[in-house]
Amino acid sequence: MIQKRYVRLISSGTYLPKERVETVELAKKHGYDPQKIISKIGVYTRYFSKEESIAEMAAHAVKNALKKASLDLDSLDLLISASGTYDKPIPHNSVLIHHELNLPSHTMAFDIDCTCLSFFKALDVASTLVQAGQYKRVAIVSSERPSVGLNWDTPESSFVLGDGAVCFILEASQSSFMLHSEYETYSQGIHFAEIPAGGSVLPPKVAESVDDKRFLFKMDGHQIHKLGSKHIESMYARFMDRSQLTMDKIQMVIPHQASLLGLGIVRRKLKIPEEKYFINIQNRGNLVAASIPFALHEAILEKRIKRGDNVVLMGAGAGITLGLFHLIY
Amino acid sequence: MIQKRYVRLISSGTYLPKERVETVELAKKHGYDPQKIISKIGVYTRYFSKEESIAEMAAHAVKNALKKASLDLDSLDLLISASGTYDKPIPHNSVLIHHELNLPSHTMAFDIDCTCLSFFKALDVASTLVQAGQYKRVAIVSSERPSVGLNWDTPESSFVLGDGAVCFILEASQSSFMLHSEYETYSQGIHFAEIPAGGSVLPPKVAESVDDKRFLFKMDGHQIHKLGSKHIESMYARFMDRSQLTMDKIQMVIPHQASLLGLGIVRRKLKIPEEKYFINIQNRGNLVAASIPFALHEAILEKRIKRGDNVVLMGAGAGITLGLFHLIY
Repeated sequence: MIQKRYVRLISSGTYLPKERVETVELAKKHGYDPQKIISKIGVYTRYFSKEESIAEMAAHAVKNALKKASLDLDSLDLLISASGTYDKPIPHNSVLIHHELNLPSHTMAFDIDCTCLSFFKALDVASTLVQAGQYKRVAIVSSERPSVGLNWDTPESSFVLGDGAVCFILEASQSSFMLHSEYETYSQGIHFAEIPAGGSVLPPKVAESVDDKRFLFKMDGHQIHKLGSKHIESMYARFMDRSQLTMDKIQMVIPHQASLLGLGIVRRKLKIPEEKYFINIQNRGNLVAASIPFALHEAILEKRIKRGDNVVLMGAGAGITLGLFHLIY
Repeated sequence: MIQKRYVRLISSGTYLPKERVETVELAKKHGYDPQKIISKIGVYTRYFSKEESIAEMAAHAVKNALKKASLDLDSLDLLISASGTYDKPIPHNSVLIHHELNLPSHTMAFDIDCTCLSFFKALDVASTLVQAGQYKRVAIVSSERPSVGLNWDTPESSFVLGDGAVCFILEASQSSFMLHSEYETYSQGIHFAEIPAGGSVLPPKVAESVDDKRFLFKMDGHQIHKLGSKHIESMYARFMDRSQLTMDKIQMVIPHQASLLGLGIVRRKLKIPEEKYFINIQNRGNLVAASIPFALHEAILEKRIKRGDNVVLMGAGAGITLGLFHLIY
């Protein structure tokens, strides 16, 4: 059953950390052939945060989003942090962002986490909370700093990830809608993208040393792609059917920017025309949960999405979970 | 505006890890006077998980809750993990629990985190999602394993925390309601309860050693209590007013079991009669986000709460955030 949620993305803002990092330099530094890395990974540039925390980057993005709509910080009822990376094991990101922004006590803050799909699910949840009248104005912010956990022995993941933050502000509306979302979770993939140590299964004190590679991100892109590919076509067909969508009605598809190669394969598999498929991985990298909303923000900025357009968000999170989301911008 | 959410807690289940730990033994082991610790902390017994992961404990609690209501795993639409502690930095707990339970692909899984208030906020969110018709049957599970991050140099926090898991199953209903919730966040308290290292601010590789105490939980109970006490009375008065509640209408208050001393002070400050104030910290410890739902489960089991009763949940999470929740069981 499709239920319209009368909710509008009224503004968005982004923040990239100061350090812009070119693949050419990075490859040389870590002993790889720059051209081989670029042709394999497809990322030319990304940004790495040296000093700026997730909460600081998030605060910049929230402020930029509010400023664009001439809104005050005080006017936020709810702040949702929707990220896969964390400043601290305790407390959660959202309250650190609350502190960074010096938000008033009436602004509630909590985190939603399903790694790369965190923004996606937060949008689904927040629009339901707004529709129910529980909150008037919500900020969802995804701020990611995967650069601190990269393993340069595994170029497939380390050369693809980037840092950055993006915030969207939501409000009730009569002309924009959140419509239909679908998810499928295949948790046989829990080891395909993970940081094995650092939580309670392998806490720091039982690791061999602080250089233990198990504290770093590891990814098996081939397995993720294999598992995702097995299911995406039937899921997409069902989603299009339930959403009463055909490709000619869709103005833009915003995929999670996981890998350039994967993006191309999925696009061709689902027969999505190139001009309706937004890609920014070359200059941003994979921004974890910030990837989809950052691409959405840029597509809006570049006027490739305008008010009233049918937009489809498409993503995958560690686990793995596949997600599809239809909204009218 | 009070909006009834026609949602019922249809079943609940718990799980405690195998190792039952007495304060007397624990105090001796770590060089403290057992009687002094017991009289100061008020916890006689708690359970510590030696081998069982957060996902494994969670899976037991979910199965126990489903079994009690003769329900199948397949019938869950949504699984929300609502915990402050994590098995791994990536992926999130809920998908590890999804895997542990071998749930079908149609069961969506995501995490909600606001440390000790995670279950509380998850109940608020999940009941809104059920009311909106997005999900028919939701499991919220809080599974916590703080024991891996205790610092025995600071008895105030290390002797109060315990491990365990609890799950509640929610469904639409005409006779039970989620009613009103209030939150206040005072994020000047972000350092009062934290694990400073292990996230991106102080990732493992920049720590001094795997024994670095910054990987462990630290808490300033006095400051938390001071900040909370400053605001709880006015917040409680407003909550009671907005909820149209008076103490004679309330059958049970379920507070977060943060510390025995604090529980007593808050109860007297708010003039809550002892018999309407559920305490289980003596034999459970502070179970982080599992604390409130575990106490709720035990109050139901002991028939101190029956169908139709007005129940108030009351808690505080790291940050700090204060929360009050009114439901009709």
